[in-house]
Amino acid sequence: METVFSYEHLHQYTLGTFLAMGCPQDDALLATEVLLRADLRGIDSHGIARLSGYWRLFEAGRINPSAHVRVVHETPSTATVDGDRGLGLVVAPKAMRIAISKAEMVGSGWVSVRNSNHFGIAGYHAMMALEKDMIGWAMTNASALVTPTFSKEKMLGTNPICVAIPAGAEAPFVADFATTTAANGKLEILQRKNAEAPLGWVQDAAGQPTTDANALKKGGALLPLGGDREHGSHKGYALGSIVDIFSAVLSGASYGPWAPPFPAYVPMPENMPGDGLGHFLGAMRIDGFRPASEFKEHMDNWIRRFHAAQPADPTQPVLVPGDPEREMEALRSREGIPLVDAVVADLQALGEKTGLRL
Amino acid sequence: METVFSYEHLHQYTLGTFLAMGCPQDDALLATEVLLRADLRGIDSHGIARLSGYWRLFEAGRINPSAHVRVVHETPSTATVDGDRGLGLVVAPKAMRIAISKAEMVGSGWVSVRNSNHFGIAGYHAMMALEKDMIGWAMTNASALVTPTFSKEKMLGTNPICVAIPAGAEAPFVADFATTTAANGKLEILQRKNAEAPLGWVQDAAGQPTTDANALKKGGALLPLGGDREHGSHKGYALGSIVDIFSAVLSGASYGPWAPPFPAYVPMPENMPGDGLGHFLGAMRIDGFRPASEFKEHMDNWIRRFHAAQPADPTQPVLVPGDPEREMEALRSREGIPLVDAVVADLQALGEKTGLRL
Repeated sequence: METVFSYEHLHQYTLGTFLAMGCPQDDALLATEVLLRADLRGIDSHGIARLSGYWRLFEAGRINPSAHVRVVHETPSTATVDGDRGLGLVVAPKAMRIAISKAEMVGSGWVSVRNSNHFGIAGYHAMMALEKDMIGWAMTNASALVTPTFSKEKMLGTNPICVAIPAGAEAPFVADFATTTAANGKLEILQRKNAEAPLGWVQDAAGQPTTDANALKKGGALLPLGGDREHGSHKGYALGSIVDIFSAVLSGASYGPWAPPFPAYVPMPENMPGDGLGHFLGAMRIDGFRPASEFKEHMDNWIRRFHAAQPADPTQPVLVPGDPEREMEALRSREGIPLVDAVVADLQALGEKTGLRL
Repeated sequence: METVFSYEHLHQYTLGTFLAMGCPQDDALLATEVLLRADLRGIDSHGIARLSGYWRLFEAGRINPSAHVRVVHETPSTATVDGDRGLGLVVAPKAMRIAISKAEMVGSGWVSVRNSNHFGIAGYHAMMALEKDMIGWAMTNASALVTPTFSKEKMLGTNPICVAIPAGAEAPFVADFATTTAANGKLEILQRKNAEAPLGWVQDAAGQPTTDANALKKGGALLPLGGDREHGSHKGYALGSIVDIFSAVLSGASYGPWAPPFPAYVPMPENMPGDGLGHFLGAMRIDGFRPASEFKEHMDNWIRRFHAAQPADPTQPVLVPGDPEREMEALRSREGIPLVDAVVADLQALGEKTGLRL
């Protein structure tokens, strides 16, 4: 069962929680906006459902609510940022502002971040570039749930990539996706329904294909985009690796199987080679390449042409990346955000610690 | 059947062909090196097998052998380059040199290229950054063979991405892949064997799944990485779109279904919205983020840890992107490059036009 809450109601509750954690007002507001943007856009696994998880990381001493985000190394177009163990929800948009400001100065800006935590949806950060007529880029590493091709050992996170590209009259192009065949949230839906997963989503503890939606809980793993070697999983594995290296090896965060886990009850990996989680944020000025108005006309043409591509099934028109999330955001902004009972109960339990009522 | 040729022999033949086309000496040498690097690395579909295709484009007036590659728009870290209808094999490495030189000045350099032609393997261009202790990036759009998710219309090329990352004692990380489930070259191998394709590689003209390896010749299409919606093809579609937009919409090349076809006998699309094919090349200085020696130690650690990941099958160790191509390059540099009879016959026929003997 679900209960529908207004955005404003969840905003107040979330803001109160981050303030109770000890975040300064501006940071609490920013974290709230970033977190709830996931719920608005229909990426429920990365929104308020994780709020109690962030709280437990705070209780475990793994999140510094009053973190001082600072540049530790830079050139005119690049920087490494230390997140001071802050909320990724705050560290990432601050790092993105640095990328944008570098792009304003020299055409593009690229920021690798260490010593951070989970940053919500990549889409929020990449989309910050849009209003500046820039292309935005956001990636993050995450705790290891995914096996490389040919392996049965979990070595990479679901390591998402978002690229946001402005258009003119049309809505922007926003591709925001995990580098796995399917997101963990989709498996959870199947688990609740007691349904099987399609082949290619997960493998069992021995590294064999399985349709068991609970495989991950039994020592199995998520599979890189492609699923198996024959269907190109080495490409999904390469993409997840690129995200890991740009986010964590470049910055000095902890990479690969040593990425810190999100659940506070999971012990930290031993011999971590760097500090915290890593992100990678980028911004490129459109007019670093051609006049923005010209580019936007062509992006509108691109988007219209792809929307008009012949559908295989006339009842299912061709989409452009970002369409489903934008439609969901319009709907939920209007009609509210549904939360499943388990999430409501979890937030109510959290409220007993913070003194807030959902 | 195959005949094995030495690299030197094919080099002489290819160089002679580009000189006969009218390329200046330096450009002919560069084009030869780029083209044959594909054969050395085992990407046979993009090497000397395409030489007669380039020649036919030249005959059709679509390649300018004495092109003057120039920057038409720039900031300190970005540029748009007009390839003057040159060989992509020459235009792309020249554009990559510009990206590298910008990275030397301001930390990173990003170059979008229009008015070019097929650039061989992305790996050559991205790997140019390695010797400078930079991360290299190369992408290109290509003529439409791939359908978006939910579509039966070919709208995108196989649009490859290469990211090359330097290491220390270990060999570099080089991910070089088409954004489709399978490359066209793999389908051609199945066609020669009269074998079926795995589900998820191609669809038929009606947009339905098929195992017919000849589907493309019957109006079908290649599928984006993921294969179908359930297996994440919207992610492969998004990746191919990003390559198309960065390479062609940013630069002013012809994008999407209007990308110029490689076979000279295929008429050019009507109402092309830009000039020629587009590429996107990038370089980021490692020490724009952290000292290169430190980064390389961690990359060595990353690579060793991934090589040591538990294999699902003990006889198939886990690979790091770039391993198979590097091994092939070592083998073929030593033992020569095998060409199938059809390619040998094609090159012999080309030799009748150029006066060269294979």
